[in-house]
Amino acid sequence: MSRFMNVNGKHYRTIWLKEEDKRVVQIINQLVLPHKFEILDLHRVEDVRRAIKDMYVRGAGLIGAAAAYGMYLAALEASDSAFERDLLASAQILKATRPTASNLAWAVDAMLAKLTGPSGDMEQKRVEARSLAGEIADQDAEYCRNIGLHGAEIIAGIAEKKKGETVNILTHCNAGWLAFVDYGSALSPVYTAFDRGIKVHVWVDETRPRNQGASLTAWELAQHGVSHDLIPDNAGGHLMQHGMVDMVITGADRVTRCGDAANKIGTYLKAVAAKENGVPFYVALPSSTFDFTMRDGLREIPIEERDAAEVRYVSGKTSGGIIETVQICPDATPARNWGFDVTPGRYIRALISERGVCEASERGILSLYPERAANG
Amino acid sequence: MSRFMNVNGKHYRTIWLKEEDKRVVQIINQLVLPHKFEILDLHRVEDVRRAIKDMYVRGAGLIGAAAAYGMYLAALEASDSAFERDLLASAQILKATRPTASNLAWAVDAMLAKLTGPSGDMEQKRVEARSLAGEIADQDAEYCRNIGLHGAEIIAGIAEKKKGETVNILTHCNAGWLAFVDYGSALSPVYTAFDRGIKVHVWVDETRPRNQGASLTAWELAQHGVSHDLIPDNAGGHLMQHGMVDMVITGADRVTRCGDAANKIGTYLKAVAAKENGVPFYVALPSSTFDFTMRDGLREIPIEERDAAEVRYVSGKTSGGIIETVQICPDATPARNWGFDVTPGRYIRALISERGVCEASERGILSLYPERAANG
Repeated sequence: MSRFMNVNGKHYRTIWLKEEDKRVVQIINQLVLPHKFEILDLHRVEDVRRAIKDMYVRGAGLIGAAAAYGMYLAALEASDSAFERDLLASAQILKATRPTASNLAWAVDAMLAKLTGPSGDMEQKRVEARSLAGEIADQDAEYCRNIGLHGAEIIAGIAEKKKGETVNILTHCNAGWLAFVDYGSALSPVYTAFDRGIKVHVWVDETRPRNQGASLTAWELAQHGVSHDLIPDNAGGHLMQHGMVDMVITGADRVTRCGDAANKIGTYLKAVAAKENGVPFYVALPSSTFDFTMRDGLREIPIEERDAAEVRYVSGKTSGGIIETVQICPDATPARNWGFDVTPGRYIRALISERGVCEASERGILSLYPERAANG
Repeated sequence: MSRFMNVNGKHYRTIWLKEEDKRVVQIINQLVLPHKFEILDLHRVEDVRRAIKDMYVRGAGLIGAAAAYGMYLAALEASDSAFERDLLASAQILKATRPTASNLAWAVDAMLAKLTGPSGDMEQKRVEARSLAGEIADQDAEYCRNIGLHGAEIIAGIAEKKKGETVNILTHCNAGWLAFVDYGSALSPVYTAFDRGIKVHVWVDETRPRNQGASLTAWELAQHGVSHDLIPDNAGGHLMQHGMVDMVITGADRVTRCGDAANKIGTYLKAVAAKENGVPFYVALPSSTFDFTMRDGLREIPIEERDAAEVRYVSGKTSGGIIETVQICPDATPARNWGFDVTPGRYIRALISERGVCEASERGILSLYPERAANG
């Protein structure tokens, strides 16, 4: 599998096993990006739990891969005498970290299915755990690469309509290379189109409260050389009203079988404005982000409420080069912090998955995933 | 005229003449709120220009009053030999500070009309300038007080429908006491309803990039004791989808004769989501915010583009109690920063002015302002 992204001239994925010791998982610390590029070692399930919970790693695909590697570490830690019980306990702990992303539970369950059941040799299972976690990561990267191929066709179509003028793409949060194992979901089509020589420009929503757009999307677009401008989350409607957005592409954390998409809080506002202004709104996702057991996203998808401190404080780099956190409201101000919102399928022009492009409806989705027809 | 707001037990307006020396204008430095309550002396037109341009004062009504007091200082500075020429030069300078708010040009022109023309005694004109600036400030406060009376009726109606349950009101940016001379536009109805014992709760959009919601609206609501929660600008759509917003009220910087409203960037996104979710969206404004010479807000209202640094940096208080500015994106990230967007009248349930409540259309507006029928 090719690695896609260069950082300072070296190829990286977002998660991998340490070269010198394959019992250690390594990640890029996304909490200190873009100000510092730091690699962290994860030795135990507890390290993985904290990395997901506190968002050292984030993004639908990367959370899934991290959880898979977390289950590999769980298999290393599990006692021979109570192997399965220990694994189940670790699975519970990992699943409880973030409730909205469906990739998380999907990856944990895939690992569990392999590692539990008919008893066998524990050492053999530990080898299998490492192998399956690697396959899950490889699959995530490969799916994202294919999302890029399908999505780039849409961008190419718009570029053709615009007779080669720059295609302006708005994205929210980070659904790029950093949110997956490689390539990204929403940004994979952008990179693919860019690599083919199509002129693209990205409007990067800063994505409060945690500023993943400002800190991560702006960073990785710059690493790849893609033209972009950072904007406040408030600006997208104005841009659409004035014809300055040709398409919106976002990722998703969970998509129901009817096409309702949970994604970073604020996505819905952009989707509504896009529909109002005739701007096509796309959601890009690998299969692992679908939740075929759910239909009505607004009623069924659990929305994580996170610490109010994320709203009350902002972190960044001071003029002295130090990472500092500042409080933006009065000392006593209460805040609320829902991590995601749900965009009903009717606002979405199409879904882009590794299998192709489909309508954000049950009919559309089942046309790409006919084997799921029975899950409803 | 009663003063409305208490700060640390003392009544304040947002702008006034210094008690000890009436040739000095005093303002509250809104750049250091909520972390510090600081009063600044403005001695010269240049001080006023900078106070408006750099947002020591901001908000439609307060910009207007500051410009009026600025013209008073201009009259004090103007040479006897070229009084009118000097005044016109100062008027130009003040008008160039912020292009979107119509109160600014309105107040400057009102001052000019009084101070130019048939020549007279300069000292007399300086006395008149002081007097008229005071009247403009008084009128702003009185208009806002009346906006409160009319708007509170709407809140009372919702409270009645909800059988006394809390009315949840979402607001964007700061259109409170701090944005006017007193009371506010969007928040005046909230304060009036609260003072009448109606249960209200305000969702405070933090309002990136300058965080006037987090720093000013949250601060003044707390001063008055009104229940509120700070939220990211991204959250409003989610709240509306889940029935957690009963109404939206914002202020405006310019409203055309057809009811299109320019207001802080991001207002339009909330208006579109409100319409989509059946949540009534109100715009509160004094007469001075109307621009009866314009019809189509999207095409005609000039939208200020401000320094990209406002997007790239965030200011706040460190844990050590120091005001610090942090960079939230990579060093080289370009950003764009439009200050306002335009919400077409069709998204607005009604306008609330000092004269009453009307449809956001030419017919509606002229029903309250019949004397303006000829201006079209």
